[in-house]
Amino acid sequence: MPERRSVFFVSDRTGITVEMLGNSLLTQFEEVEFKKVTLPFIDNLDKIREVTNQIAARFAESGKRPLVFTSLTEDSLREEISKSNAMVLDLFDRFIVPLEEELGVKSSHAIGRSHSAGNFKDYNHRIEAVNYTLAHDDGVTNRNLEQADIILVGVSRSGKTPTCLYMALQFGVKAANYPLIPEDLEKMKLPPALLPLKSKVWGLSIVPTRLAQIRQERKPDSKYASLANCEWEVSMAERLMEGAGIQYLNSTTKSIEELATTILHEAHLDRRVY
Amino acid sequence: MPERRSVFFVSDRTGITVEMLGNSLLTQFEEVEFKKVTLPFIDNLDKIREVTNQIAARFAESGKRPLVFTSLTEDSLREEISKSNAMVLDLFDRFIVPLEEELGVKSSHAIGRSHSAGNFKDYNHRIEAVNYTLAHDDGVTNRNLEQADIILVGVSRSGKTPTCLYMALQFGVKAANYPLIPEDLEKMKLPPALLPLKSKVWGLSIVPTRLAQIRQERKPDSKYASLANCEWEVSMAERLMEGAGIQYLNSTTKSIEELATTILHEAHLDRRVY
Repeated sequence: MPERRSVFFVSDRTGITVEMLGNSLLTQFEEVEFKKVTLPFIDNLDKIREVTNQIAARFAESGKRPLVFTSLTEDSLREEISKSNAMVLDLFDRFIVPLEEELGVKSSHAIGRSHSAGNFKDYNHRIEAVNYTLAHDDGVTNRNLEQADIILVGVSRSGKTPTCLYMALQFGVKAANYPLIPEDLEKMKLPPALLPLKSKVWGLSIVPTRLAQIRQERKPDSKYASLANCEWEVSMAERLMEGAGIQYLNSTTKSIEELATTILHEAHLDRRVY
Repeated sequence: MPERRSVFFVSDRTGITVEMLGNSLLTQFEEVEFKKVTLPFIDNLDKIREVTNQIAARFAESGKRPLVFTSLTEDSLREEISKSNAMVLDLFDRFIVPLEEELGVKSSHAIGRSHSAGNFKDYNHRIEAVNYTLAHDDGVTNRNLEQADIILVGVSRSGKTPTCLYMALQFGVKAANYPLIPEDLEKMKLPPALLPLKSKVWGLSIVPTRLAQIRQERKPDSKYASLANCEWEVSMAERLMEGAGIQYLNSTTKSIEELATTILHEAHLDRRVY
């Protein structure tokens, strides 16, 4: 039986950062199985004591020190959690002191604001981008299509919608998406509305067996979901994109984050949210 | 003039984690102005050398050592970047060795996969949640409303849509949203479809001046955007929510990430994506 180690992500804010960092570190230890708990908004001593009680209970149960990833800005909270019987890895601790020395100023040691909280300009860009992306999902309208920062094409269910939404939310980028439907594939031509905007068009492809699996959940036992049809659509769509000189990524092996970041990066798009 | 320090976020993957951690550290130094560049997918020596050239150029320009936050799993890449004339803060370096000791196993030192790449179950949950959320945006339908994990209410433009989409994308949670329209506010009653689902309903509120500002960009000089109307709508909506026993958060001071995480946490929702 593989070792099962408890992991706590403890933050005085959302915990998203500490969770992402912790998770990417833990993927380096494939043979260990982890049991993870995220505890956000731990911003006073009472809450921290509840956390240390949980940690102690887990230790008693499993006989193994839990791993505790923390990003706590207040010294008193950090001190309290450091006393628990666990391996505590604090993100702030390890970086904030060297940064203070380098910058020659003291850090505020206050609970940080998110990169976009209270930043009206950033918030507006995100909302504007989300609205645009929603209004231009699935080729629903060609109105203002020229205002898109990027237009994603691909067969139905290749991952266009979540990738576009992620780009809008995370980067404030106006991302339209346009399906490649069987008529386009038969004609071997891009939808006409996209021709003058080709420089903004990027493609998504997908492995046919995976596409069939996804479509099967939506429309079981349909022609649409059949492997033969998925194979046909994918191979035609890839030929069409290659013929039109459109770069495409495969959504089978990449997460939504990776697709969004790769396109942003390779298309040299300016993000509007920092 | 405030000091302007160059910051590089360098990653062999998307850079999202290193950027988030770096940004939350940098918010601790409010008096310093930073000039930030994110460089994702730096996964070979040629690319790393381009990066070190950029760092050197920035140093020559500004006369100050840039800060370089990195998450590079391969030793050769880390070694190369550590030679540059900059303050290099490596996320892996500081945590991976202590973790190896604690867990008693060597880390794979391989470029990590994202927390959801290639994980079909996670991907499906995200897509399913995004589809649900899109189909239940702005009270557009009551069909299957009972399948929602959470239903957000609030006046138009209070931040419901981006918060719901973030919950769907980040946590795989089915988040419907429902506007509180002037008729609801006049009757001082929740929309009838929500009454049997009240335990799932959460509210968003917003500071009226901010709401007016947001609506002004959408419909300039309308009654809808006027401060008097925004004040009326917000105060009525808050009274309605309080009367109905619905908890609400204020989107003026919280980022989309904070709103989503707070609701997830306080509503004790099970996330479906890890």
